[in-house]
Order: sequence, then structure tokens, then C-alpha cells
Amino acid sequence: MTMNYCSQCGAKISLGIPPGDDRPRYVCAQCGTIHYENPKLVVGAIPEWEGRILLCRRAIEPRHGKWTLPAGFMENNETVAQAAARETAEEACARVEIDKLYTVYSIPHISQVHVFFRSRLLDLDFRPGSESLEVALFGEEAMPWDELAFSSVRNTLRHFFADRRKGAFSLHVGDIERILRE
Amino acid sequence: MTMNYCSQCGAKISLGIPPGDDRPRYVCAQCGTIHYENPKLVVGAIPEWEGRILLCRRAIEPRHGKWTLPAGFMENNETVAQAAARETAEEACARVEIDKLYTVYSIPHISQVHVFFRSRLLDLDFRPGSESLEVALFGEEAMPWDELAFSSVRNTLRHFFADRRKGAFSLHVGDIERILRE
Repeated sequence: MTMNYCSQCGAKISLGIPPGDDRPRYVCAQCGTIHYENPKLVVGAIPEWEGRILLCRRAIEPRHGKWTLPAGFMENNETVAQAAARETAEEACARVEIDKLYTVYSIPHISQVHVFFRSRLLDLDFRPGSESLEVALFGEEAMPWDELAFSSVRNTLRHFFADRRKGAFSLHVGDIERILRE
Repeated sequence: MTMNYCSQCGAKISLGIPPGDDRPRYVCAQCGTIHYENPKLVVGAIPEWEGRILLCRRAIEPRHGKWTLPAGFMENNETVAQAAARETAEEACARVEIDKLYTVYSIPHISQVHVFFRSRLLDLDFRPGSESLEVALFGEEAMPWDELAFSSVRNTLRHFFADRRKGAFSLHVGDIERILRE
């Protein structure tokens, strides 16, 4: 996010390379604070129920109306597993038991890292949270592949069904590049 | 970090729970910007050379003088693997080929997630970077276990040598709690 004022002292701020550093940062000339900006973690779950997966249709931008696995920005003072369970509770009002870490995607052009955990849906008592239009279970045949919100979700689900056919789930780590359309 | 002024418009700012949210955020009453704060990713490598591991003795706080695996805050616009290689280059002036993701630790009380990759040191041309006092290769017997800088580094190295004895390396995901000393 562009920064105009120092959040510590309120002075006007600008980009500059601090001594000993090698890239531009927002540095305050008045109080000396260096405001580092770092990638954000987006954490989600793959809630499974008898071979089907719980997806949420988004009620918010970006990708309003598209389907996603429950996921969102990790909050301070929680663990990645807690973040996955919290997002599932918030977006699908659903309870999951978090299982193994399954996918890790770096998305450098938006400075995000997306991680998804396999998880077991504990009961069928789910409904849309405030950020979802609807919530539903999908088997592989019924997956809305062309209506998925994010590449990280699509890749995670593709790996999930491929690994299930093989009978062996393993961690997948990858990068997602910007797609340029002409 | 405590925020006193809005980085967008420069107005005085305070904590408040935004509509539809459930936790305090820094919200600007003047321009409406909500300043979210999220956990930071610390990414590192386990550089291996013929069974020994490259460690760096820290020239900076926290833990000045203690030993660590090369690691640091992930930067915007890079992948986790790139961050691991960059930190190894910066702290140990060493080149590595990044291999599999090996450990992921949530550290909720400091809002950080630490991740380490197995990696292959490409040559013996290494030396301390500006944040290191010295850099050296250690076998298991020589590991400075009582002089390691961080719990995430200690746990990662313990798993590494245990897995090597077993002859099978696998991903380790865990949480690190605050240690209270009386």
C-alpha cells in the first residue's frame, strides 16, 4: 500500500534505500522509522465429507460470485492451523478438524503466500457466513472448475483429486505467476 | 507496531472494531482506511554439504552472538524458495540449490511463521555477510545446541538429524509457544 505519512510521528514520508539495505522502503526523515512491507499469508482448508469438498460462493470482491475453498488472511496471534479452522467457521459456519498441510503457493506479483490444509468436516451443520452467497459440497464430477475464484484453489483441488486417485496424498509447493491476457 | 497516525491521510488514529469485524484494528476516522496487521513470514534454508550444515553466528539483535540457520523476513514480490536462497546469499554469501520444504512453525505470540527448506550448498565459497559474525559448517556431533538463536532453528535441526538417522525426511509442521521463565 502506498504510504504518505509516517504512522509513528505523522510526518510526510517518501521512499528511499536505508543505509545497508538494497531496496526502497518508506523511511521517515523526521523520526527515522523504517516501515517494512512484507508478504501476507492466506490460509485455508479443504473440508472433506465422504469424498466431497465444501466450497463457498463469494459474496465479496475480488471474484464476487465465484467459488472458493474457505480461506483468508491469517491474523496476528494465531497459528496457521487455527487460521484455517477460523476461516472455515467464518465463511461456511462449519467446524473442521485440521489435518495435514497440503499446498503452499507463492504468488509474488501480489506478495501473497497461500496455504491449504486437508481437513475433516465434523458435521453437516453449515451455512453461508457474511462473506459467502452459498455453501455446498461438491464431488469431483460436479466441481465448478470454470467458476473457481483463485488459481491457488484450482491447483489445490486438482492435486487433491489426482492424489486421491493415486491413493497417496503429499505436500505440493509451487509458484503462481501473473497470467497476461491479450 | 503501535500506530499513531494514518499512513494515508496523516490524521490521528485509534483502535476500534470496524463494522462486521470482530477484532480491534487501527481505523482512520478521517479517511476511513482500515490498517490491517498480519503475521510475517520468516524463511530460511538448511544448507547441506557432505552431511554438514552451514550456520551463521548473528552480528545483530535479537540473539547477537548466537548461531542460526540463514533465514529472514520474506520480501514482497518474491517466492518462498527465492527468499530462502536470498537470505543464504545475504547472511553467508553462499549459493544453494533449494530442495523440499521441510519445517513450518507458527509462533503466535510474536505473529510470525518460520519456514525452512532443505538445500544443497553448491560450493565452499562462503563468508560472513553483514549480519553475521562468522559462518561455519557443523556436523551433528559439533552442533552448538546450547548456542542456537531460535527455537524454530533448534527444532528444525533436531528433526533433520532424527530424519537422517531414519533415512526418511518428511515435512514437519508445528507451533512454538512462549517459554515463560520464572
